Amino acid sequence: MPHHSTPLDLAFHALSDPTRRAVVSRLAEGEVPVSVLAEPFDMALPSFAQHLKVLEDCGLIASEKRGRSRWCRLVQTRFNEAADWMETERRSWARRLDRLEVYLDKAEKK
Amino acid sequence: MPHHSTPLDLAFHALSDPTRRAVVSRLAEGEVPVSVLAEPFDMALPSFAQHLKVLEDCGLIASEKRGRSRWCRLVQTRFNEAADWMETERRSWARRLDRLEVYLDKAEKK
Repeated sequence: MPHHSTPLDLAFHALSDPTRRAVVSRLAEGEVPVSVLAEPFDMALPSFAQHLKVLEDCGLIASEKRGRSRWCRLVQTRFNEAADWMETERRSWARRLDRLEVYLDKAEKK
Repeated sequence: MPHHSTPLDLAFHALSDPTRRAVVSRLAEGEVPVSVLAEPFDMALPSFAQHLKVLEDCGLIASEKRGRSRWCRLVQTRFNEAADWMETERRSWARRLDRLEVYLDKAEKK
């Protein structure tokens, strides 16, 4: 990553890996202990922990120790920031296509 | 990036840079020649061209030569693939919060 990455840069970078996206998908359904989260992945625990660290460092997930387990949860603010960016662009694009359609309709009628 | 990156991996990686996101935002408003696209960026043209290459390699943008200019445009399919992934997760999360609310309401009434 370049220097001075913004939170949004780091969030999109975190989402560029299939394991990390699968973790986000799982946590969207509810918080779980790391051990449960790791189960479906055919991966050594240190490698998996590294993926969690990337997600936690960029603020997409948070974790806390409860008794003998560490529980993970998704953090809505950061996720929404990235999702909102995508939706803003998508709407900007849709508006542009609408304008184009109006223009072509008018051009046709002339 | 890891080996065997999927198109979605590469799209999110491409979006992890502020210059590349700004290019996507600009192209969402309509196609433009590379020279016009590069104008707002305080960057040497080869560096800018490298960013365009990342966006084009992952299928988020396409370009074509018209006369003496190269024109760039956003490619809807790949962009929607990434935006749809975000929205699916967001909805999954919203449903989970709804279920949690119903559960807490019931628990309160008991």
